[in-house]
Formats: sequence, structure tokens, C-alpha cells
Amino acid sequence: MNEAESNQNRPVGVIDSGVGGLTVAKEIMRQLPKEEIVYVGDTARCPYGPRPEEEVRRFTWEMIDYLMEKNIKLLVIACNTATAVVLEEAREKLSIPVLGVIHPGAVAALKATDKEHIGVIGTEGTIHSGAYHQELTSINNRVRVVSLACPEFVPLVESGRAWKPEAESIVRKSLEPMLAYDIDTLILGCTHYPLLAPQIQKACGSGVTVIASGEETAREVSSLLYFQKLQCSSDRPPNHRFYTTGSTTNFEHIAFSWIGKELPVYSLQLEQSRAGRSR
Amino acid sequence: MNEAESNQNRPVGVIDSGVGGLTVAKEIMRQLPKEEIVYVGDTARCPYGPRPEEEVRRFTWEMIDYLMEKNIKLLVIACNTATAVVLEEAREKLSIPVLGVIHPGAVAALKATDKEHIGVIGTEGTIHSGAYHQELTSINNRVRVVSLACPEFVPLVESGRAWKPEAESIVRKSLEPMLAYDIDTLILGCTHYPLLAPQIQKACGSGVTVIASGEETAREVSSLLYFQKLQCSSDRPPNHRFYTTGSTTNFEHIAFSWIGKELPVYSLQLEQSRAGRSR
Repeated sequence: MNEAESNQNRPVGVIDSGVGGLTVAKEIMRQLPKEEIVYVGDTARCPYGPRPEEEVRRFTWEMIDYLMEKNIKLLVIACNTATAVVLEEAREKLSIPVLGVIHPGAVAALKATDKEHIGVIGTEGTIHSGAYHQELTSINNRVRVVSLACPEFVPLVESGRAWKPEAESIVRKSLEPMLAYDIDTLILGCTHYPLLAPQIQKACGSGVTVIASGEETAREVSSLLYFQKLQCSSDRPPNHRFYTTGSTTNFEHIAFSWIGKELPVYSLQLEQSRAGRSR
Repeated sequence: MNEAESNQNRPVGVIDSGVGGLTVAKEIMRQLPKEEIVYVGDTARCPYGPRPEEEVRRFTWEMIDYLMEKNIKLLVIACNTATAVVLEEAREKLSIPVLGVIHPGAVAALKATDKEHIGVIGTEGTIHSGAYHQELTSINNRVRVVSLACPEFVPLVESGRAWKPEAESIVRKSLEPMLAYDIDTLILGCTHYPLLAPQIQKACGSGVTVIASGEETAREVSSLLYFQKLQCSSDRPPNHRFYTTGSTTNFEHIAFSWIGKELPVYSLQLEQSRAGRSR
């Protein structure tokens, strides 16, 4: 194996405050089945949304440092909160390409919209950060953006009720204020929301294109690997690894129900791994 | 204006053997309305498909050299034939990012497909080159690809009959061999074909996702400008310019009917502009 090949065959790193990034990992597995994934979910300290910015920064860099030691070739920050806080500095400081989940969702929405009227739903933190609004209007200043926080969606998914009949009415009720606007495209600005995509599509009607950030991020991983000449050249099956700072049993259970197959999940203690280091 | 801004506000270059690349230019205008386009269409020597590879290479480099003098920040080779012949060497030799139309269509199809069964239609040259097949299977070796040349489509579009009733039956008849397969995604592997998208979608049925390479290429332009920190930062209206080696009247007429507005079209003689130079 020459140097270029050994570079190409390094894993893709994915970090998230918890399990939400599994929707991104699942899409990378589907769209880029040769690529190997190393995933870190900081489940023990999830959610990041309500934490002070400095804490989000420190926790996120702990995950990044851990993955850099695993020799990743590209990093995906699959958490909207961490993307808003750390993406730009990670892009500056790291020698590898870094992707967040906000830009891929925004460009996909700008492609999909005809009316230039786009809805964004997310957690309160993401919506209040205005990150999607800023990304969309910086590319196209004619576009109108309606944003709505849907705080009930993450608990609905994490408690395993996404497939229950009650989910449909909760989703419809939450989306009501959005449906009064004449949007033609809706960005799911949270990595948990694709699990509610059928109910969201039904509530919005067939005239609205629903953009799942996980799918779009995986596609942007594909483009970036191509441009950087980092596409995996090996045909051996990838050896994915998932690390969680919380319960491996819970993580395995959620990973199985979301991704539909058993995944190797390992326990990780992040603070200890950083002892004696500073940034 | 500082150096970074002056870098960001340079135009995007688009080259094509003729008018087909206008579908890409149109999508760049729609998805990235701040970006300025300089387009070269080698209409006088169109089509490139039947020409020897060495000639395609020489003609394409003439267009690239012309655009490099216009200080472009990114180059789109919006012609499938020129992409197949020149893309890799242009990526090696030029100091700016270079995109073809094949990779964007391929990654979009891999995102869209559920059954991992994808159809590709294009000119005879593109289909025989196997470029889409190779791109798709190099990323996902499980995917099945069915390819079909549709030689009647470009003349149908260029003669202005895309909106005539006869187009529907010509499209349906051409696609018949493809429809026997159980594809769920169809790549329009020719920049002319989006003009026939309604008829193609109708022939394939609503169960097939139709991927237009122009839309997908514009989206990839967006991603690449973002990663290279080359997004336009100016709010002044872009000053698009279109150059053709053939009749400006014909080019203006087609550009108006495809893009729906009048565009500034200039005449260009490529061989003369290269006199005394060599590659």
C-alpha cells in the first residue's frame, strides 16, 4: 500500500453530543459503503444545547482530540450546537477537512426551493442561534426563512415513541405555526428529526420538500473526499467503531433500532483521555 | 477591498462545447445568485462527442486558457465529453478548483436511490465512455447501473422542439429499453436533457427520481466555494458574460428561451486567441 492509498483508507470521524449523529453515520454507510466510520457520542454529557459556549467548546475539542489520535481523514461535526460553536475554529486549526451539518442542509434547501421560501425546524438552541438563517441568506439574500423550535421532537425520538400513533398528532401540532406560511422546502435542522420524517412530510403535505441534514451531510462528505482525493480505495469491508461516554447498552439499543444492524459499541471516558493536555 | 475579498469576488468560469452548459449556468444563477459567471460555449466546433480525444483536449484547453485570463476562481467543465477527457489533468494543472458534471450527478443518484439500481442516459459518447458507471461503482460497488444512449434528445432540444407535443412520444420511445429495468433513480447524463425533464419524468413514472446534472453541479459549486472560502462577499449584482465561438444571435436566442432573460453574449475566436502559445 503506497502513501496515497494509506491516506485514503483512513476512517471518517463523526462526533455528536449523543446519538443524533447516528442518522449521519447511517447515511454515510448507505451512500459511501466503502468508508470506515469512527463515531464518538458524548451521551453522558448530552444535551449540549443548554450548556455555556465555553463548555460546549471544551467537550467538543475532547472528542476531536480523541478522533485525531485515531488518524481520521475527515471530521463531521454531526451536532448543530457544536457546529455553531466550534466549526470555524476546527476548520482553521485542523489539517484535515471538517464539515458541520448546517451548510449541507442549507445548500440542499437552496437547490430544492422554487418559491425561495424555506422553513427550518430545530432545537431551541439551534433556532435561536440563527445559524441556518444566516447560512441561507448569506448565499441567497432573496430567500425568506421561517424558523420554528420543536422542543418536543428530541424527547419523542429518544424515548422510542417515534413509531407510536401519538407521534403523528404531536408532530402536526408542533408544526402548525410553520404551516401558516407558504414554504415549499423544510430543513430538518436537528439530527434526530429524520426519525420523524414520515410524520413531518405528512403534516406538511406533498408540496413541501423535506431536507434531512444527515443525508445531505453524507453527500457533502462524498464531494469533499472526492475533491481532496481521499476516497477509500480498498475493497475490504469497513471496520466501523462507535464510542459512547454513557451506557453502551443504551447506545447499542438505539443504534440497532435506528440503523437496523448491530454495531460495535465501546465505552469511552473523555476527561481522563485529556488529562495532562491543554489547548 | 482586502485580498481575501478580492479573491472571493472573482467570477466562476463555465465552459461547454456549446449551449448545453447553459442549464448549469442557469442553476448557478438560481442557487448562487451572488456569484458572477463567465461562460464560454464553443458553438462553432460543437459537438465534441464525435471528435478525436486529442482534438477535444486542445479545444477544451483553449477555453480554459481564455477563462484563466479572466481571473476565474473556480472552473466548471459543463460538458460530459470534455469532462471525461480533460477533468483529471485540469485538476492537476490548475491552481483553482475544477468541477466536472459527472461526479455531482453520481453522488446525487447514490443519495436518492433506495434499491441501489440506477439508470443513466446520455449521448452515445458519454454512455460508451462508461464514465458514470465507473464513478457510481467506485463509490458503491453494490450498485447496479443501466445505461442507455438517447441520440435523438440533443437534436430535439437544439431544434426548439422540446415543448412540442411530438417530444413526449419521442422521449417515451427512446426510454423504452430502460423502463424494462426496475430502476428507482435516473441520471440525466447530458446537460441538454433537463429541457426534456417533464417528458422524461412522465415516461418513467413518479417512482423514479430524476437527477439533473446541472442542478447537482451548481450545488457542488456551492459546497466547493464554501470549503475553499471563496463564496462571493459582495452584494452588487453580478455582471455575467457569455462568449460563443459561433453566432451570437443564435446563442442569445437559445439563452433567452432556456434561461428566460436576456444575457450579454459576445463573439469569441478561440484559435486566434491562442496564436503563438503552446501547451
